[in-house]
Amino acid sequence: MSEAPRQLTLNLFIYPNGHHEAAWRHPLAARERILDVRYYQSLAQQAEAAKFDAVFFADGLGIGDGIRYASRFHLEPLTLINALAAATEKIGFIATASTSFYDPYTLARLFGATDHWSGGRIGWNIVTSSLKSAAGNYGLTRHPSHAERYERAHEFVQAVTRLWDSWEDEAFVNDASTGLFADTDRIHAANFTGKHLRVQGALNLPRSPQGRPVYVQAGSSEDGRQFAAQYAEAIFTAHQTLESAQSFYRDVKQRAAQWGRNPAHIKILPGLSPFIGSTEAEARALQREFDELIQTDFSLLQLKNQLGLDIDLRGQDLDAPFPRHLIPHSADQQEHSRFQLVLDIVDREKPTLRQLIERLAGARGHFVLAGTPEQIADHIETWFTQGAADGINVMPPWLPGGLEVFTREVVPILQRRGLFRQDYSGDTLRDHLGLPRPPSLFASEQQQAA
Amino acid sequence: MSEAPRQLTLNLFIYPNGHHEAAWRHPLAARERILDVRYYQSLAQQAEAAKFDAVFFADGLGIGDGIRYASRFHLEPLTLINALAAATEKIGFIATASTSFYDPYTLARLFGATDHWSGGRIGWNIVTSSLKSAAGNYGLTRHPSHAERYERAHEFVQAVTRLWDSWEDEAFVNDASTGLFADTDRIHAANFTGKHLRVQGALNLPRSPQGRPVYVQAGSSEDGRQFAAQYAEAIFTAHQTLESAQSFYRDVKQRAAQWGRNPAHIKILPGLSPFIGSTEAEARALQREFDELIQTDFSLLQLKNQLGLDIDLRGQDLDAPFPRHLIPHSADQQEHSRFQLVLDIVDREKPTLRQLIERLAGARGHFVLAGTPEQIADHIETWFTQGAADGINVMPPWLPGGLEVFTREVVPILQRRGLFRQDYSGDTLRDHLGLPRPPSLFASEQQQAA
Ligand SMILES: Cc1cc2nc3c(=O)[nH]c(=O)nc-3n(C[C@H](O)[C@H](O)[C@H](O)COP(=O)(O)O)c2cc1C
Ligand SMILES: Cc1cc2nc3c(=O)[nH]c(=O)nc-3n(C[C@H](O)[C@H](O)[C@H](O)COP(=O)(O)O)c2cc1C
Repeated sequence: MSEAPRQLTLNLFIYPNGHHEAAWRHPLAARERILDVRYYQSLAQQAEAAKFDAVFFADGLGIGDGIRYASRFHLEPLTLINALAAATEKIGFIATASTSFYDPYTLARLFGATDHWSGGRIGWNIVTSSLKSAAGNYGLTRHPSHAERYERAHEFVQAVTRLWDSWEDEAFVNDASTGLFADTDRIHAANFTGKHLRVQGALNLPRSPQGRPVYVQAGSSEDGRQFAAQYAEAIFTAHQTLESAQSFYRDVKQRAAQWGRNPAHIKILPGLSPFIGSTEAEARALQREFDELIQTDFSLLQLKNQLGLDIDLRGQDLDAPFPRHLIPHSADQQEHSRFQLVLDIVDREKPTLRQLIERLAGARGHFVLAGTPEQIADHIETWFTQGAADGINVMPPWLPGGLEVFTREVVPILQRRGLFRQDYSGDTLRDHLGLPRPPSLFASEQQQAA
Repeated sequence: MSEAPRQLTLNLFIYPNGHHEAAWRHPLAARERILDVRYYQSLAQQAEAAKFDAVFFADGLGIGDGIRYASRFHLEPLTLINALAAATEKIGFIATASTSFYDPYTLARLFGATDHWSGGRIGWNIVTSSLKSAAGNYGLTRHPSHAERYERAHEFVQAVTRLWDSWEDEAFVNDASTGLFADTDRIHAANFTGKHLRVQGALNLPRSPQGRPVYVQAGSSEDGRQFAAQYAEAIFTAHQTLESAQSFYRDVKQRAAQWGRNPAHIKILPGLSPFIGSTEAEARALQREFDELIQTDFSLLQLKNQLGLDIDLRGQDLDAPFPRHLIPHSADQQEHSRFQLVLDIVDREKPTLRQLIERLAGARGHFVLAGTPEQIADHIETWFTQGAADGINVMPPWLPGGLEVFTREVVPILQRRGLFRQDYSGDTLRDHLGLPRPPSLFASEQQQAA
């Protein structure tokens, strides 16, 4: 048998009403159902019927002022994915959790258990939390710096890896006749001691179906890339041009190789927010409907936060060129990838403030494309075959319709072109992504000793 | 209409293979399914078909040596109840979480979200964690003292209450036409500052169906009772005699009244682990089958931990009287209610070490009763009508059969006697328990100001 052709990964990124910031105001959005778990279950079932690899939920440990204007609160991802896994069979679920504010033991248990309950369908989006209001919610007087957060993140990943590995696979014996429930010689203290974290272990749970959840990451700064190259098995990223995505792709794969890793075992997934119509004009008209519902005050608030500005943009003339001189140039800010992305748009497109706001309203800097199903599929194929992506983080502008039209119109084209699976060939998220199941660190230490 | 007669609460307390410490070795137990979520879903569905109020999961943040001998690891409760709520409609779920090791913001989100996903069916068993191995798993060099843990627990409950109340019910507006998603005048900072905890808030989630999860508690020490009287809406407790349960019941209800609370709004639920047979002899024979599977080394390990002994009991003669002189008398130990309970058995029954072990093997000091369905129902009725209980924490010795026989044989008797509901009359756990839905603290502050 010849090797199977390289297959696309499709990940569904769910925001309550969809990713367009005004989606919740549009009659097509499921406004009344955003706290109803059955709504999210039906979205996950729809994605599963279309053979998506996974469903993803972002997270943030606080709220901002923007809550006044939009459904921008965070669905708690760990509880939610357990309710969704219970309503599905195959599709994976990726939950975001912060290395800055979780305790490693708590996080390891929540994800380890979820991997059991879902039969091995879980991924962890590892974030360091850039949201400033989180610090006060966790008793801190200041938000830790970008560098401190990544320093703790490194320790955190090492600590939870040791916890997930603390039971070797063979430790769970469960033999009634001998009365041996667990082989305690194969249960190991994690014994992690770092600058920020100290965890004894072992975890109080047999090793999970996937060994460890799939490690996912979404930082694009220098620290973020370095971190991703070392640990991540899938990466979410935002790009406005093919070239930018290609350069990111090359860079991360190279860095992974430098860590001695197989670059095929890091799936790079740029975001795409598609407005789909039977003609391009129809798709654009649909996008315009959503853009017309934008509340300028909200958009300006978001932009202020994204750029880390101190000044209130509401005084500015919306139809004058974007006031480039207001953007700070401090190194700390420059580290933030979303900041850089906005700056690139400003420098490349020289938009007015209003144009910039509409540019970002669709998906906060992710690629927004209005077109026919063929055009959307062409875009995906190009990025997939031209070294920019291993798959796509699908960010429907509104829900549930924006997912429904994608699965009905675009997925079959990708399947006909041989780019995307007709059915699942395995049961776990690692199976879907073609990722190996890692052996326990402690098992290999024993082998080396033997 | 006359007032409805007082109704029993029935709560199902699930341990993976049931509560008898050797249950996992018995052919009747579901040994192969203890990591399979569908097994727990089917137990919850069975309890729901019998109209139980709730299903409860204990928790502990570490493992002990006993894991070698028995299925004594903790199913992570929060993830699990989300998977079970998704497979049921009405029954409540009570998850244990520790005030000593969780962060208030994390816990408030996990429970608040779960209350949303379940449609208001959630309770929180508030524990301070007596398990000593937890401290090392959370980076501490020593386990905090009983007094310190309760001091933090008080702050913790106040902090999370403010978080759950931080969105007034009316704050979630979701009005597309005006573009007002949330009324930020009705979203409040929690602003809690204590000796141990500091939380800014608000929570990043609209107020949940029950306003707050049901507050459950299970400490029986002086501090524990005081805490329960102040906050708890349901209490789990272990008693070996009717008199002991009655005295506990009176004491807690009185304390609650002293806090200005309605004593009917604290449900007291002693544990009962029933071996059921068509004759008493058959029930006893069944119990004996399980007792014969006990591993003495495990039982002695558990007893050592329960009594806080430093010495290894494995040297002792099993058939000599229990060596009472080995038990320490330090005040710190005496505070622990489980310690006191074992001591009472020793002093009352003067057992041999072997007899004491078998006495505790069924349910760690909870009441174990072998009898016919009528006898089990009589016991429950007596405790319910004689001021010892508002309901029963049902602890099947083995699963799934121990639940199945209880729901098939005992529940109908309780229903015929008019003690237990024929069907649910409401949708939330507060409805089932007859507990009020608390208004937001901040809403009443506003009313007072107006
Ligand atoms: C698709 C995508 C999803 C993200 N989701 C989250 C999230 O849920 N929570 C979060 O704190 N950050 C999230 N981020 C942001 C990054 O994880 C990262 O914190 C941020 O980019 C700042 O780190 P950096 O400077 O390394 O890029 C996301 C980024 C992308 C591209
Ligand atoms: C039915 C029941 C269930 C309990 N579940 C837990 C539990 O899940 N986790 C825990 O740490 N303690 C649990 N406990 C113990 C108490 O919460 C409490 O921590 C212990 O009794 C020590 O506190 P005290 O000295 O106030 O009694 C339980 C007790 C009972 C009676």
